[in-house]
Amino acid sequence: MKAIEIFEPGKIGIKERPIPDLKENEVLVKVKAAGICGSDVHIYHGKNVFATYPRVAGHEFAGEIVKIGSQVTGLMAGDRVVVDPVISCGRCYPCRIGRHNVCRNLNVLGVHRDGGYQEYVAVAAANTYKLPGNISWEVAALVEPYTIAAQVIDRGRLTAEDTVLICGAGPIGLILLQAVKMAGAKVAIMDIIETRLDKAGKMGADLVIHAERRDLVQEIMTFTDQNGASLILEATGNANVLETCIHRIASAAGRVVVLGFSTEPPVKIPQVDIMSRELEIIGTRLNNHKFPQVTEWFVKGLVEPEQVISHTFKFHEVQTAFELIDTNPAEVCKIVLRF
Amino acid sequence: MKAIEIFEPGKIGIKERPIPDLKENEVLVKVKAAGICGSDVHIYHGKNVFATYPRVAGHEFAGEIVKIGSQVTGLMAGDRVVVDPVISCGRCYPCRIGRHNVCRNLNVLGVHRDGGYQEYVAVAAANTYKLPGNISWEVAALVEPYTIAAQVIDRGRLTAEDTVLICGAGPIGLILLQAVKMAGAKVAIMDIIETRLDKAGKMGADLVIHAERRDLVQEIMTFTDQNGASLILEATGNANVLETCIHRIASAAGRVVVLGFSTEPPVKIPQVDIMSRELEIIGTRLNNHKFPQVTEWFVKGLVEPEQVISHTFKFHEVQTAFELIDTNPAEVCKIVLRF
Repeated sequence: MKAIEIFEPGKIGIKERPIPDLKENEVLVKVKAAGICGSDVHIYHGKNVFATYPRVAGHEFAGEIVKIGSQVTGLMAGDRVVVDPVISCGRCYPCRIGRHNVCRNLNVLGVHRDGGYQEYVAVAAANTYKLPGNISWEVAALVEPYTIAAQVIDRGRLTAEDTVLICGAGPIGLILLQAVKMAGAKVAIMDIIETRLDKAGKMGADLVIHAERRDLVQEIMTFTDQNGASLILEATGNANVLETCIHRIASAAGRVVVLGFSTEPPVKIPQVDIMSRELEIIGTRLNNHKFPQVTEWFVKGLVEPEQVISHTFKFHEVQTAFELIDTNPAEVCKIVLRF
Repeated sequence: MKAIEIFEPGKIGIKERPIPDLKENEVLVKVKAAGICGSDVHIYHGKNVFATYPRVAGHEFAGEIVKIGSQVTGLMAGDRVVVDPVISCGRCYPCRIGRHNVCRNLNVLGVHRDGGYQEYVAVAAANTYKLPGNISWEVAALVEPYTIAAQVIDRGRLTAEDTVLICGAGPIGLILLQAVKMAGAKVAIMDIIETRLDKAGKMGADLVIHAERRDLVQEIMTFTDQNGASLILEATGNANVLETCIHRIASAAGRVVVLGFSTEPPVKIPQVDIMSRELEIIGTRLNNHKFPQVTEWFVKGLVEPEQVISHTFKFHEVQTAFELIDTNPAEVCKIVLRF
């Protein structure tokens, strides 16, 4: 079979590998579609702090089961599945308190171990979720990024009464927008790329803000009757943006959810900002068993994943796709690789 | 009557004032005892960012009702009361969502308006809470600082399963220690003053750490089976301590409650710290209707406020008391002024 391997930062290629052996609790998935996440591109560039090399990236993928392990029940060859890339130990402190996505021995398919950018993957049956046939493979590959949004709104305790600011209108920002709209909250979204903001406006954002052409703080204050945003979802990873959100945009009793994973520069926060408004700055990582919820969103048509897909490529065109993401952020939203 | 007035930063004295007039919804309280908080000393030094001058400080006080306004019911002259210093508008966004302690028009007695360091205070009847006669005036003055602890553990969602680190073993740290012990959680406490740590040990801390003589991170890691502390209550206000707590001490899924209100230096936090362990950095301010809960703690004897009182002074000795706090932190815990 063929696998897309990132040999080391900056070097990628197709490699011939044997089809993986199956353990008794695993299923063999013939990958049909896999999304490209910013973090996949970061692995290619050597900028993902969690990745090791050589690595087959890809943590957003769907496919067909072609073989099941001897102990697997409830699944069979021919089943269409999406795969939760989060693998936890089940024994450590976070696992024992029901927070397996921050497991101390965390393994993420496509990051810490090989993922979905290959023709066949052996995965634990417990990590697969069945999808009905009316959902295309390309759309199925988007279940995982929607679980990121499900985790974010859970962590941020989103309610319909919130006035939300989403920072960043890339794929995750737009997916967050759909999730926030689904909950019935009022939502503004900011970015510095006009095409992304156009898309956000078409998806129903109540306010789109071009942060280089408008005064972000002033726009949000007007939008919120001078209260500030009660919930901020920070998906740009930019330290300045996060600092501005905490210092000047979050309402009293506001929550700021942090999706970014840069190490430098650190975010500089005066303690009085956190204390005086009783802010909460909340981390979110991957997803904590959100696949059932998101597959329900997809099956019931509560979200519009088609709107997020801008391009599809054949899997052996991965490098072209990565380069397109780097060079043309104005035109690219979510890219899905077809296998 | 006599009032202790801070005329401007650094200048304090006794001033003769008329006994306040009463509004129809107010009661006149003859102050019997008032605690000194670090923030009172900060007002004296001009370092409290919220205070204006001239100011009668004092937000921890108890006394006897001597007169009631025409519309007041359920209270009468002779009632022994403690006073919640938090005054909110009831109309703004935080008030409407039940978070009146971060009201946009917040007024705190002794900070934004004159407080308890005077012989008589007129306060809204709604801000008073009755106390039975078996609780001494000195102890009654400590209800307010215990409401700070009640707010902190509420904000931090303390449970008996937590492993807690309290940073700072001053009056608030020791009060927090009692509250955490009451909840049944395992608790370590750190400071750099030995006498404070001795007191914490006698109060039942499971581990006391002298942060200049021991390696704080290593001690906590051993204490927590290498998990880190699941709940950190940061009461030193020191940016370096808070940074270390977030970067190296908080467990995965940990919560860090921030009590400090310094503006400089800001706390420097790598985003990846917040994201990768799904940390929550949580502000806490004053108290949100915690007086009923804390008066119950006192009445039922669930906490030991006597242990926190190190000195009492007559109210006209306030400057001596303030200086003692500044010059002798090793010997001073909570000082109460008698009226």
